[in-house]
Amino acid sequence: VSYSLDRVLAGEVVAGARLMRDVDDRRPAGLALLKQLHPHTGKAYITGVTGNPGAGKSTVVDALIAHHRAAGHKVGVVAVDPTSPFSGGAILGDRIRMQRHALDPGVFIRSLATRGHLGGLSRSTFDVVSVLDAMGYDQILVETVGVGQDEIEVMRAAHTSVVVTVPGLGDDIQAIKAGLLEIADVLCVNKADREGVDRTVRDLLHMLDLRPTSGHDGFGTGKEVEIVQTIATKGLSDGSGIVELAAAVERHRAVAWTGEAGIRRARIRASAQIAELVRALLADRVEQGLARGLADEADAVVQRREDPYTVAERLVARLR
Amino acid sequence: VSYSLDRVLAGEVVAGARLMRDVDDRRPAGLALLKQLHPHTGKAYITGVTGNPGAGKSTVVDALIAHHRAAGHKVGVVAVDPTSPFSGGAILGDRIRMQRHALDPGVFIRSLATRGHLGGLSRSTFDVVSVLDAMGYDQILVETVGVGQDEIEVMRAAHTSVVVTVPGLGDDIQAIKAGLLEIADVLCVNKADREGVDRTVRDLLHMLDLRPTSGHDGFGTGKEVEIVQTIATKGLSDGSGIVELAAAVERHRAVAWTGEAGIRRARIRASAQIAELVRALLADRVEQGLARGLADEADAVVQRREDPYTVAERLVARLR
Repeated sequence: VSYSLDRVLAGEVVAGARLMRDVDDRRPAGLALLKQLHPHTGKAYITGVTGNPGAGKSTVVDALIAHHRAAGHKVGVVAVDPTSPFSGGAILGDRIRMQRHALDPGVFIRSLATRGHLGGLSRSTFDVVSVLDAMGYDQILVETVGVGQDEIEVMRAAHTSVVVTVPGLGDDIQAIKAGLLEIADVLCVNKADREGVDRTVRDLLHMLDLRPTSGHDGFGTGKEVEIVQTIATKGLSDGSGIVELAAAVERHRAVAWTGEAGIRRARIRASAQIAELVRALLADRVEQGLARGLADEADAVVQRREDPYTVAERLVARLR
Repeated sequence: VSYSLDRVLAGEVVAGARLMRDVDDRRPAGLALLKQLHPHTGKAYITGVTGNPGAGKSTVVDALIAHHRAAGHKVGVVAVDPTSPFSGGAILGDRIRMQRHALDPGVFIRSLATRGHLGGLSRSTFDVVSVLDAMGYDQILVETVGVGQDEIEVMRAAHTSVVVTVPGLGDDIQAIKAGLLEIADVLCVNKADREGVDRTVRDLLHMLDLRPTSGHDGFGTGKEVEIVQTIATKGLSDGSGIVELAAAVERHRAVAWTGEAGIRRARIRASAQIAELVRALLADRVEQGLARGLADEADAVVQRREDPYTVAERLVARLR
């Protein structure tokens, strides 16, 4: 094994990358080290960035990276990709834009693909964030395409959730946005030089008014959510609105993650992680149990000799 | 209980709707009847319709409903909605378009929202499809916004998967499309009067060439996927291309769901349903186990007295 507690804590890039790979493959050595890292985490601030496809999330993340680098921070990025259930590959073309930062030793970018379908994304995000945190990346950005329930769960790993949207989206996408809106701590209206930006802001304010609670954690109301307009340009830390966006995240941090509120939020975040891990452990056991195949049971169901519900109950009873 | 095996098999709408509601709420009476229905299912043909947000899936489904009605079929529709993790509400505005069919006793439309996040959507889809099938709806359409892994899993309930796309989408959306492409049995390029349709078809053909296997089930290659161009107009059964689309689905049915291939596919579909049910049963147990709250465990993790992985392992050991 080419990593150790010391090397990861020293921020060695090769050691960190290998650890992430082994954790992803669920190798015992990687998982054991992950446990040892825990006491050394909790120093990083984690900002989640999600939003509608096409809203320019990657460009916003890119600008935030440049902003944090200019302020002297080490920046970790977790880029969560939608993935085919078959290829295991990740295919977001605009991720390539971020590779420019690959030459900057103060930036570490890790892509995550969907694995299986039982909370794998959220578990992996927590894992990678822990490694980056222990390595000394003090600003961590989690970017995810905000389209499915899994992607929304990913935001539980973040301290502040930034939801990026743009003026002028179609109906289907509006519906997705409504789901995203409920987890937003800060709203970023990107491409704010587009026509219709005033209407978009007005619509968002109206939707926020209807929101009973703020964020994943049920604190505050929609009225506490700031709306920031950006015209993000890749690599410009002072891209129009990016300074304001970062400041809005800082204000949320000051309100939400200090004092009693901060303690309650930290507890909720840890509960979410533990619950995710419990689900993942059970899911692993199910997959192992089902791996032997279900040919006989399936035939019984197809031929209507048995119903699938009774078959499933019997299998679960056997798994115990 | 206002439903019975006889009333559901007789196709009584009120009985069917109440059964679906009770199954959704996991009431024992509903689940018991679901088991009894199984021998009476297997008669319906199930077409899944998914695709990019904004591709006009609802309009295509609407046109397919009209097409099947004109041919004398009873049509069941399962509309799967992306849902906020909080409100439990479903918000697809364009679903309203389909309500026109609500006056037609030969059409039964059931919306499904995301419940929890452990395969709930896929389980519920199988359940509703079974009730519709037993009620005598012989053509069933499952519509889902094809954005997340959960939504793709939903398509396992279908015999033929139609993926709807449109010319001229952005980068993010292209990535999602690539995932969808792998489960397509038939590709529908909607809004085919738009500029760039030839290029879209060419791109799709190229992507299909790269696809190693076809559909969820690993049969055939991308070369067997038909591409149909449509200009779906709501309510027109002869909307440009809809007859061709329905014919392409029929051709897929004839090849994929007859003879030896059909037996193999039916077995794979039943296996997927059983596996989904096993996961759901275990997930229910996890949620019950976690419902008492994790405050002590979370505090230990936040204060770095324990790591979350060890805590999760202990909780799982206790669940057995």
